[in-house]
Amino acid sequence: MSSTSPSVRRTKTAKDVPYDLIYWPTVPGRGEAVRLMLEEAGASYTDTAVEENCIELVMAQTSKTNTGDASNPPPFAPPILKHGNLLIHQLPNILQYLSTRLGLAPTYDDENNGIFHVNQLALTALDGLSNEAHDVHHPISVDFYYEDQKEAAKKRAENYIDSRLPKFIGYFERVLKGEASGEGPWLYGGALSYADLVLFQCIDGLKFAFPKALAKMEESKEYEGVFKLYGAVKERPRIKEYLASDRRLKYGNGLWRHYPELDSE
Amino acid sequence: MSSTSPSVRRTKTAKDVPYDLIYWPTVPGRGEAVRLMLEEAGASYTDTAVEENCIELVMAQTSKTNTGDASNPPPFAPPILKHGNLLIHQLPNILQYLSTRLGLAPTYDDENNGIFHVNQLALTALDGLSNEAHDVHHPISVDFYYEDQKEAAKKRAENYIDSRLPKFIGYFERVLKGEASGEGPWLYGGALSYADLVLFQCIDGLKFAFPKALAKMEESKEYEGVFKLYGAVKERPRIKEYLASDRRLKYGNGLWRHYPELDSE
Repeated sequence: MSSTSPSVRRTKTAKDVPYDLIYWPTVPGRGEAVRLMLEEAGASYTDTAVEENCIELVMAQTSKTNTGDASNPPPFAPPILKHGNLLIHQLPNILQYLSTRLGLAPTYDDENNGIFHVNQLALTALDGLSNEAHDVHHPISVDFYYEDQKEAAKKRAENYIDSRLPKFIGYFERVLKGEASGEGPWLYGGALSYADLVLFQCIDGLKFAFPKALAKMEESKEYEGVFKLYGAVKERPRIKEYLASDRRLKYGNGLWRHYPELDSE
Repeated sequence: MSSTSPSVRRTKTAKDVPYDLIYWPTVPGRGEAVRLMLEEAGASYTDTAVEENCIELVMAQTSKTNTGDASNPPPFAPPILKHGNLLIHQLPNILQYLSTRLGLAPTYDDENNGIFHVNQLALTALDGLSNEAHDVHHPISVDFYYEDQKEAAKKRAENYIDSRLPKFIGYFERVLKGEASGEGPWLYGGALSYADLVLFQCIDGLKFAFPKALAKMEESKEYEGVFKLYGAVKERPRIKEYLASDRRLKYGNGLWRHYPELDSE
């Protein structure tokens, strides 16, 4: 499963070692914030999504017989990041691991502890605008098809659009108005961080899933800062090039799904 | 809201500054893993749960008019941790902030990057055994009463007990069998970490919420490592003293709730 010998306990994480993203193929999904960070930083990485045997590679990692190796516990689910001999999972954890290495968050010795502010913003965006967006179409269980939980999904979607979306997007608007966000369009300290990339990806996914609801929010002008941040990320030269490339996968039946019956009327 | 002057940008996080936990009163909830860490480490802390005006203190933090201060963005929701001039939120973020300071995770300069392994284990326990345990009784929305989403809750509970619980608790059993868990009852590197405290709290909450389902799992002997870890945390001298004290709040209508109709039959 891993090329690491169980006897090698030292983790190699030198800067010249490329990053390997292990994630499902075909849709952006939970792997996408990882890709955006790597692309923004111009980092060297591989992506299992382009491998023919991608699904086998992912499932070997999460297999019930995998107990990890001498230095790495087994991963629970993708996305998974391999960097030298290090293997880690859990999206917010991967983002945080990459952040200081790619210059997309303050380092741990920063006296203002900025990394913990950036991390809390990323976690909040992922909770409300990614995990909850997923649970709208799967309110009962990920084990069942959407078609078998449509009634509950409809109720959840109405509440999500009327209450949860304004609550979370309104929160980020408030963060942007706050002094700690600093100058410019970014969430924290006047500089682009991975929290901005996460928020961009969430808004982009939501625009696909709930186009009418998001258009209404944008037209309302109540969340101008959030949509300005969205546009500012989209115009970053490397992100712009990436989004236009075939490395950016198309939305489909993944985390962000478009069911017209779940959108605003 | 905060005693911090907006002009003070430097965050004071010296070791002798006590920690202040800002969380709802009456139930353990999402604040509990924070308390367990502070208690295990014998750290000095205050807890809004004991304040008469606790609810006002929490709501002032999450008010729609709070935009934070010069160095702290506003918090989205409790638990919130104040440490000197630093104010942070998001449970996994607070746990990680405390971990290296309280000696409950490897430090960031550890060459094996153990903090990211401990963090991924804590995040996975919180996802599957805390957040999902909450969503069992609130599958449609936190905005509605349980009584108004009972039908969906019943379906979700069946799936949770039959599929999700064995998947997550089975995962931790696999981690404990893996070489990277090291000697002794702990999840990572042969030493107690905050991931163990999080897993303990999740199992304890689940035992309250789904006593029959958890008893079956314990009797099956399939998850012996997990229940052994649970027992080992419970016997830690400081944890034992804490659990017997009135600082440990009682379960009720919080995150972990007991509705007999949602438990195993």
